[in-house]
Amino acid sequence: MILEKLRTLIIDGHLDEARQMLAALHPAAIADVLESVPPESRISVWRQLDPETSGEVLLEANEEVRAQLIRESAPDRLAAAMAKLDMDKLADLYDEVPATVMDAVVQAMHIQRRRTLETLRAFPEDTAGGLMDQDAITVRSDVTLEVVQRYLRWLRRTQKKLPALTDTLIVVDLQGRYEGRLPLADLVSLDPQRTVSSVMERKPEGIPADMAARRVARLFQDLDLVSAPVVDADGKLLGRITVDDMVDVIRDEADHSVLAPAGLHEKVDMFAPVMGSAMRRGIWLGVHLVAAFAAAWVIGQFGATIEEMVAVAILMPIVATMGGVAGTQSLALVIRGLAQDQVGRGNARQLLLKELGVSLVNSVFWALVVAIAAATWFGNVPLALVFALAIVINLLTAALSGTLIPLMLDRVGIDPAMAGGVLLVAVTDVVGFASFLALATFFVV
Amino acid sequence: MILEKLRTLIIDGHLDEARQMLAALHPAAIADVLESVPPESRISVWRQLDPETSGEVLLEANEEVRAQLIRESAPDRLAAAMAKLDMDKLADLYDEVPATVMDAVVQAMHIQRRRTLETLRAFPEDTAGGLMDQDAITVRSDVTLEVVQRYLRWLRRTQKKLPALTDTLIVVDLQGRYEGRLPLADLVSLDPQRTVSSVMERKPEGIPADMAARRVARLFQDLDLVSAPVVDADGKLLGRITVDDMVDVIRDEADHSVLAPAGLHEKVDMFAPVMGSAMRRGIWLGVHLVAAFAAAWVIGQFGATIEEMVAVAILMPIVATMGGVAGTQSLALVIRGLAQDQVGRGNARQLLLKELGVSLVNSVFWALVVAIAAATWFGNVPLALVFALAIVINLLTAALSGTLIPLMLDRVGIDPAMAGGVLLVAVTDVVGFASFLALATFFVV
Repeated sequence: MILEKLRTLIIDGHLDEARQMLAALHPAAIADVLESVPPESRISVWRQLDPETSGEVLLEANEEVRAQLIRESAPDRLAAAMAKLDMDKLADLYDEVPATVMDAVVQAMHIQRRRTLETLRAFPEDTAGGLMDQDAITVRSDVTLEVVQRYLRWLRRTQKKLPALTDTLIVVDLQGRYEGRLPLADLVSLDPQRTVSSVMERKPEGIPADMAARRVARLFQDLDLVSAPVVDADGKLLGRITVDDMVDVIRDEADHSVLAPAGLHEKVDMFAPVMGSAMRRGIWLGVHLVAAFAAAWVIGQFGATIEEMVAVAILMPIVATMGGVAGTQSLALVIRGLAQDQVGRGNARQLLLKELGVSLVNSVFWALVVAIAAATWFGNVPLALVFALAIVINLLTAALSGTLIPLMLDRVGIDPAMAGGVLLVAVTDVVGFASFLALATFFVV
Repeated sequence: MILEKLRTLIIDGHLDEARQMLAALHPAAIADVLESVPPESRISVWRQLDPETSGEVLLEANEEVRAQLIRESAPDRLAAAMAKLDMDKLADLYDEVPATVMDAVVQAMHIQRRRTLETLRAFPEDTAGGLMDQDAITVRSDVTLEVVQRYLRWLRRTQKKLPALTDTLIVVDLQGRYEGRLPLADLVSLDPQRTVSSVMERKPEGIPADMAARRVARLFQDLDLVSAPVVDADGKLLGRITVDDMVDVIRDEADHSVLAPAGLHEKVDMFAPVMGSAMRRGIWLGVHLVAAFAAAWVIGQFGATIEEMVAVAILMPIVATMGGVAGTQSLALVIRGLAQDQVGRGNARQLLLKELGVSLVNSVFWALVVAIAAATWFGNVPLALVFALAIVINLLTAALSGTLIPLMLDRVGIDPAMAGGVLLVAVTDVVGFASFLALATFFVV
């Protein structure tokens, strides 16, 4: 409700009123509002934001909106906004901000923070290393819980606050190797005279820095983690990952599932300028156009049949559509299975057989229905039978390609959520038109 | 890797080996494995599981797999598995388990746990109340942090462990009204002589029990929460929500985005029996069939044109396909916007104009391309021009309906992710065929 009100205020140009409401909002909510208004309105709101929060807003906004804000900000204001950010966030922004601004931010940093930034930048963004921060509080295993608490009180006096999402302390040995975790819940509820080594948890093991973000997210989900240590090949602690980043990874996956089948990227700005959007989306139309012309060429081979009996031209799109719809169902199941690591070599054959079974049942049932409908409409029983047979053929083709296409794309490293649909429809269109028209040519006309 | 190996072992019938590997896995991973093998194999694995973990496995499995396991378990074994579960999880299972089993479980419970169960059952599953547990540790605001720690140590001695995901204690007044939160990170790092009231956080406010799960998930994401209190209309504390449940909500949303456009439910079992799957999926084919016959009827109105010039039959599917693809792009953008509360009354007009702009640019460009292709192919310039014009009309229709259909569906409470695609394609097919065939009839033939 409040977001919708704000949106209207901003679009209608009541910026003063909007500013008061924005001041009470969390940076993530402000980013949400900015994303949902056209680019011109965004900048006027952005310029009015408190520099304290504007760094966070920048981070929460999606990539394209962020790029716009960065492009249209004064360099010194941008540097001020970024100075407030955590190192891991700064590392993410490194390549998106003009080099001169980044240099200014880095120059103003303490040497140790500068080193941290370099470490974090070394890992790809979609790995455990790219998602970790350096905010882990580490303790040694040979001290008592009482000593740990005294250490935390000292930290608190010298810093302002403990890092956000500190639910456990991380136990390391003298060489900095990860040994285990000490949950704060244990620290506050166990006898203060016990040693860390006698109470620490040795599970989960450290997460390798090169583990894919998607896999880390599943680990967090399965083990209900809030934070987890990241280690290098020798078991040395590199940093920690927190659940908020995992929530973002899963949310991005959800966005990807919605947008990829339409050939869109999940970082896309809803209000991206018309020309840029048109170009990117036009490419996708072009890909489909190739498939559509292939199907048209198939139809063209049977021009004589269509001329002789116009009913085949009327019925042929139905054969193609039914195949596309049935194939999309198999495709969706397999894509979800792949995303959850539940489909692979071990069970692909079982799944294929089951999908073929489902398609066979449905194709026989619907073939009967459409045969009766076609026979009634055109009073031509051979045509109706051939129509029904083509539907059976295309639904079986659909099950086969809806199951195998995503598996093959995944094996060769192409995103099945994006490319699967267009390939599938190309197959079901071509097979649908070809089978119906060929059967009609040989048996009816 | 290990999951794939397990899958193969189970499907090939090497159950002893599989059992040893399963024993080392987390219940969520075991549920993953069960979901990814055919139903017959599932039961033999399930029967071998330790009763200690089998309750958790039951919870982690998706709804259909769970139903199968419940159906094929001996009642006493099922009751034993459920006796180990948390109250909020038990409440979720209440209606899925045979009444006799549930009665046995409830009879064996302490009276207070039985009351808790009744409270939790009163809230719908997809609201804050339905997601909360009763594991909040509450403290009063007038005591010192040292007293709180003594209380926690006493709790630990009398119970076995503090509840999972306890990152904060919840501060309530004498009437049980929610006052604020005391993070464990503050408890361990601040002066033990300070009182709770002097250090507690008053934000975030308590979450109303009837807030939709989706909204709660967004709150957790925006504020980076690990746990949050749930309150009734008078501000009385009812329970707490933890981030693990929010991760599940977001993950379900992601699954929904993949499966809903294919008319599938996110709880669907990949290996559901063929007949049941065929029935549910057949209904979706039937819905599309109605739309396909509508389009065929439109084509039928122009039978004479097709007979006279077979090229229109060859080109017409291209017009329909291009509209469908372009419309799907607008649809995907709006569906994501709706899911994130970023599209609504305030900006719908701006979005529509932008989508129309993108479509206009693309339609003009691609209309030129296809016109040249068609003119070359058929040597018929008037036909090529009419073909191009129909593509422009259908792409503009696509932008219009791709934007407005999901907005209207959302307004009347129908899931746009599920119904949007089929409605859109019905519109772009009908308009595509009708505009091209009508134009060809009047200007070319």
